[in-house]
Amino acid sequence: MATKSSNVTTKPAKKKEMKKETKLGMAVKKDDNFGEWYSEVVVNSEMIEYYDISGCYILRPQAISIWETLQAFFDPEIKKMGIKNAYFPLFVTENVLQKEKDHIEGFAPEVAWVTKSGKSELEVPIAIRPTSETVMYPYFAKWIRGHRDLPLKLNQWCNVVRWEFSNPTPFIRSREFLWQEGHTAFAIKEEADQEVLEILELYRRVYEEYLAIPVIKGKKSELEKFAGGLYTTSVEAFIPHTGRGIQGATSHCLGQNFAKMFQINFEDDKGGKGMVWQNSWAYSTRTIGVMVMVHGDDKGLVLPPKVASAQVVVIPVPYKDADTTAIKAACESTANDLNAAGMRADLDTRENYSPGWKYSHWEMKGIPLRIEIGPRDLEKSQVRIVRRDNGAKIDVPMGELVEKVQEILTSIQENLFNTAKEKRDACIEVVHTWDEFMTALNNKKLILAPWCDEEIVDQVMSSN
Amino acid sequence: MATKSSNVTTKPAKKKEMKKETKLGMAVKKDDNFGEWYSEVVVNSEMIEYYDISGCYILRPQAISIWETLQAFFDPEIKKMGIKNAYFPLFVTENVLQKEKDHIEGFAPEVAWVTKSGKSELEVPIAIRPTSETVMYPYFAKWIRGHRDLPLKLNQWCNVVRWEFSNPTPFIRSREFLWQEGHTAFAIKEEADQEVLEILELYRRVYEEYLAIPVIKGKKSELEKFAGGLYTTSVEAFIPHTGRGIQGATSHCLGQNFAKMFQINFEDDKGGKGMVWQNSWAYSTRTIGVMVMVHGDDKGLVLPPKVASAQVVVIPVPYKDADTTAIKAACESTANDLNAAGMRADLDTRENYSPGWKYSHWEMKGIPLRIEIGPRDLEKSQVRIVRRDNGAKIDVPMGELVEKVQEILTSIQENLFNTAKEKRDACIEVVHTWDEFMTALNNKKLILAPWCDEEIVDQVMSSN
Repeated sequence: MATKSSNVTTKPAKKKEMKKETKLGMAVKKDDNFGEWYSEVVVNSEMIEYYDISGCYILRPQAISIWETLQAFFDPEIKKMGIKNAYFPLFVTENVLQKEKDHIEGFAPEVAWVTKSGKSELEVPIAIRPTSETVMYPYFAKWIRGHRDLPLKLNQWCNVVRWEFSNPTPFIRSREFLWQEGHTAFAIKEEADQEVLEILELYRRVYEEYLAIPVIKGKKSELEKFAGGLYTTSVEAFIPHTGRGIQGATSHCLGQNFAKMFQINFEDDKGGKGMVWQNSWAYSTRTIGVMVMVHGDDKGLVLPPKVASAQVVVIPVPYKDADTTAIKAACESTANDLNAAGMRADLDTRENYSPGWKYSHWEMKGIPLRIEIGPRDLEKSQVRIVRRDNGAKIDVPMGELVEKVQEILTSIQENLFNTAKEKRDACIEVVHTWDEFMTALNNKKLILAPWCDEEIVDQVMSSN
Repeated sequence: MATKSSNVTTKPAKKKEMKKETKLGMAVKKDDNFGEWYSEVVVNSEMIEYYDISGCYILRPQAISIWETLQAFFDPEIKKMGIKNAYFPLFVTENVLQKEKDHIEGFAPEVAWVTKSGKSELEVPIAIRPTSETVMYPYFAKWIRGHRDLPLKLNQWCNVVRWEFSNPTPFIRSREFLWQEGHTAFAIKEEADQEVLEILELYRRVYEEYLAIPVIKGKKSELEKFAGGLYTTSVEAFIPHTGRGIQGATSHCLGQNFAKMFQINFEDDKGGKGMVWQNSWAYSTRTIGVMVMVHGDDKGLVLPPKVASAQVVVIPVPYKDADTTAIKAACESTANDLNAAGMRADLDTRENYSPGWKYSHWEMKGIPLRIEIGPRDLEKSQVRIVRRDNGAKIDVPMGELVEKVQEILTSIQENLFNTAKEKRDACIEVVHTWDEFMTALNNKKLILAPWCDEEIVDQVMSSN
């Protein structure tokens, strides 16, 4: 399965004009200018604020709550696998960073260097981790002595810095980002191989079960694999609007390359010498950007219910002469009932905004469901439910509220996934010749093509 | 309540010799050389590994699990208060960093500067956050327009860097550390004042309820308050071995100083102009260091049960001719029963280590309770429980296991707190003259003295 590289072009960071509150409506349509649309939606939905250092972004509560939800799923899962959290330093010396040649070649151009503290020059410049293989592995070598010290399985939740110069894009390509990075060492290659796939499956679940995004699991080409590793697997999402695949998360088998460089050896159970097999694997805040790109629409963000910090917003719709107090009370008890049943419901009873303004406001923020309660609803002992994903309006008797809302939230989660999958699958094109390949690529297709992963492939194909 | 400043001297980072497993026993006694003892205990208990950059330390799973336990308490508490998590960039421009004069004076000597990326010089050097007031507040100014935008209450869990040159000490004084930093803005000073104290109370609970360390709440002197703030409150712990107080966590009212510098203004409900009142508050991985210092002993670490990732370790004690299988099975079911009852029990059935070695090993790691099961215990249908805090040995019928262990864990938590409190209180000395003050200080006392917090105080006291 071949896709164009995962860089998505958006306009560079720029100062937005001051704004009083969430901007209503989008100036750009998703189909008209995808990059502009993306920049607009992440800011207007209050996920991101552009920062005065290019390529750095502020992750607002709306974004961080999604990150926390994914963490609340992933962290216990890896703990069940016997992986423990640790925290290694942000800094690494030049000396250590350069130990693995291919690895440093891959990362060197993007490394940020600290050279001063206060007014003093440091004796030697110190790098900020772009990833932590070289930070951690000297200590793996120290901690691992015998086969009983294996497997060693660590993970950390942290920030990393890659000072990229091309197309900084919120979430997708930022100079600092948050991620988890797992680093494990095994006595036996098969154990490492197996873990690579177990982690990959967790990444699939992050995307498919939580973010409602279909992904394809697979092995990266030699050219695209992790610098210094043996092989790289990944989950790949697809953005129909750009016709590009986007790398969702990677699970690498590092083989013994790093073990050789850092001398991570152990005495095996027969008294012989062994060398460990290592993995590293990571997913980052990029997940959130992919979610915005796949589900967002011309009204703004669309959040899958499982990751939405507020799943429901309840809005009173008072008309002239209506009993405002009774409507408000009904709104409150509706929100309370939903929260008591374990859903996450917000209440918007602000008096200085019209119901219409509120609808647009919460649509922009991607809240999966809105519940409207007006005098007529009160009379009929019902609430009106409006779905963010497809705009459907459903009147629900108050007695069935909790059950119905739960049902609709589940349905939204499924519908978002299914819609995304249909759109993606409609883009898949099977090709057999180079001409077909190029045509499909230019038509923004996801290409299923023969692939031998040898460098000689170009000549073979053109000689056919 | 006056105490000496909170710097605790320990030996600088040095390469430890390679070691195969947790070193058994401590080379230095706590009473003989507190600094050396501390360095040894944090390494031997596998909390810390020294790193090849001075002042940076690796936080191993044993340390991070404590950090996570504190976070699991604190984070939901602040969310209940309406505080939301966000994430602001690691970097800040020189320009912005220098906006508040007193603030930058306080931090400038410790700021690490990035000046290069890859092989290129940056156009302007960029600072790594020593704290995030100046990172965040330009955006507070942008987001806060009217009184309805208030209060704005954000928090982030992150790393910060302070490139200190004096006495780096694991947890206590490190160049990079983990913390949470809360930043809030209010329309009314009284609301800010109230939050300062609510947060301070949460910090007290972190120390007293979780880490079993008595702390004193109070207001810092003008000299010691946060650079650029209005007033600083803190919880202060006391280390009897050094006779020094140690700042446990701080909750600052920043007043309107930063609001002035960053122009954080708002339109009040009458259409007039207001300026916000701000707080910032933080606790860091220092908490863990204080815990080690207060509870640790000559056998190593002592963990309060509430923060111990393993609260109990079960160890088989097979003698010659004993039924090893039955003993092992009893150990397994003991651990399982405790885990099923919501406690955290580990099993150490490794065959290549003697029971005696294991006792020392787990004592070094501070596990609150050890359960030994030998042939005689099996016969009597009992287990032997040994407390880490006071060495008491208790035989418990297997039928009462869960209930008894729960009871003993609670008792250990209380005993650690009470013992620490007694030791601290025994050091409190009330003084009235400068001579008494100096004598008490040299005797490692915690001094309760008149304090007017005016700069003229020296003259007044010496003229008495």
